[in-house]
Amino acid sequence: MSSPLSQLDIDVRWRDLDANHHVNNAMYLSYLEEARVVWLNQIISDWKVTGGVPVLAAVQLNFRRPIGYPARVRVRQFVRRLGRSSLTLGSTLSDSNDESCVFADGEVVLVWADPIAGTSMPLPEALRKICEHAAD
Amino acid sequence: MSSPLSQLDIDVRWRDLDANHHVNNAMYLSYLEEARVVWLNQIISDWKVTGGVPVLAAVQLNFRRPIGYPARVRVRQFVRRLGRSSLTLGSTLSDSNDESCVFADGEVVLVWADPIAGTSMPLPEALRKICEHAAD
Amino acid sequence: MSSPLSQLDIDVRWRDLDANHHVNNAMYLSYLEEARVVWLNQIISDWKVTGGVPVLAAVQLNFRRPIGYPARVRVRQFVRRLGRSSLTLGSTLSDSNDESCVFADGEVVLVWADPIAGTSMPLPEALRKICEHAAD
Amino acid sequence: MSSPLSQLDIDVRWRDLDANHHVNNAMYLSYLEEARVVWLNQIISDWKVTGGVPVLAAVQLNFRRPIGYPARVRVRQFVRRLGRSSLTLGSTLSDSNDESCVFADGEVVLVWADPIAGTSMPLPEALRKICEHAAD
Repeated sequence: MSSPLSQLDIDVRWRDLDANHHVNNAMYLSYLEEARVVWLNQIISDWKVTGGVPVLAAVQLNFRRPIGYPARVRVRQFVRRLGRSSLTLGSTLSDSNDESCVFADGEVVLVWADPIAGTSMPLPEALRKICEHAAD
Repeated sequence: MSSPLSQLDIDVRWRDLDANHHVNNAMYLSYLEEARVVWLNQIISDWKVTGGVPVLAAVQLNFRRPIGYPARVRVRQFVRRLGRSSLTLGSTLSDSNDESCVFADGEVVLVWADPIAGTSMPLPEALRKICEHAAD
Repeated sequence: MSSPLSQLDIDVRWRDLDANHHVNNAMYLSYLEEARVVWLNQIISDWKVTGGVPVLAAVQLNFRRPIGYPARVRVRQFVRRLGRSSLTLGSTLSDSNDESCVFADGEVVLVWADPIAGTSMPLPEALRKICEHAAD
Repeated sequence: MSSPLSQLDIDVRWRDLDANHHVNNAMYLSYLEEARVVWLNQIISDWKVTGGVPVLAAVQLNFRRPIGYPARVRVRQFVRRLGRSSLTLGSTLSDSNDESCVFADGEVVLVWADPIAGTSMPLPEALRKICEHAAD
């Protein structure tokens, strides 16, 4: 597997739990989103100047273990596939105190798009370079 | 495709939007969850008596179009695969005013489990019959 | 008490519950917000043309009874105080099947503001008329 | 004002924003809740042994400034009123990098209750002592 593109630790909030006393499944997507937003903002601080925006096209996630409270979740992202206008990011969610305890893994597909025309665009060059480097 | 197992219309709330002015991606899982919970509660009103609980094992979702506000989302569920202790439900999210406008489609894998022992269990008979009937 | 300005029924979603098996306290504000947004959009479909936006300045809420699932919550809004640039809306959240079952009551203070200058503005005339009529 | 009972820094998540590009008003209650839960769990790790649970009876909140993203919010809690079975906690939400930047302030009223009988109970002794000490 390639080296991680990014790593972020997120504190679980009590409100992330649902009536089953575990972190609700939809929160996993919010954790992935937070890791993605932090990472993308580190690469390009103002996405508007690139003329394109990342659009979430698909997600696949395997729920391995329930997440309790309190907990700190470590989100890691990897390059899984680098296309002309799309990027597939693999991800793992694990316990920040014990990374062998994997809560979930999966991937998201991002497509770069012109927000006005709605058409796909090439990935921004700064992003492509970072992904190519990590995929080596 | 098999006939739908269930159909539920959900009113989008303004809070479901994020800073991109569309329904946030994680909300799609909440819409699927709501449809699933309503449907399961119609089959068996008290899941505790069956000794097992449905556990979400995996999800795959394709985001086709953004959802704005206001909107009413129609969630349809189908039997995609019926195992001994697992059930794969296909789903579509569409506009309740125009079902040809599909917001997303995908599937979730549910596994029945003994909440104490943590081991998988056969699907409850009432559920299996409904799924077999819908899959015909 | 004045006649209600607006009434909206909101279906509780399973995800609105927290680990205490009741609707989470923060959701009450989301229910109030939904009722407010629906109501304001009925008065003026595009707020931008008025040059001002409603800003939430304060909220006070009494939690009377827990909300379970499933449930449909009826949100009613009343004019409590009508100022030059501010509006205090009283609200009740009750069971749509039994309005004598009050889940919560309280009020929110809205202030109209110029989003660029950040200064307060007179309430839009269309809004003021509706509020004066309801307060009679 | 009394010395703070507790202080917690919470990282704003991008999903906490709404379509107005600021942290949604309901999230303020979630931030207060998180601070309260962390603090209460530090005092008594298992609330069940006390036979009573804290119930949120009322909340009052003034929204002073919008919260953007990224941000880290500092939540401080104070004793405002200590009753036999109720506790009023004052709170401020400020910028962890600049505490003079106050996002919101207000208070919540907690009542201790027997979860079975639904009747109020005296505050747990461990909690009372901490509150009396902080109120000095």
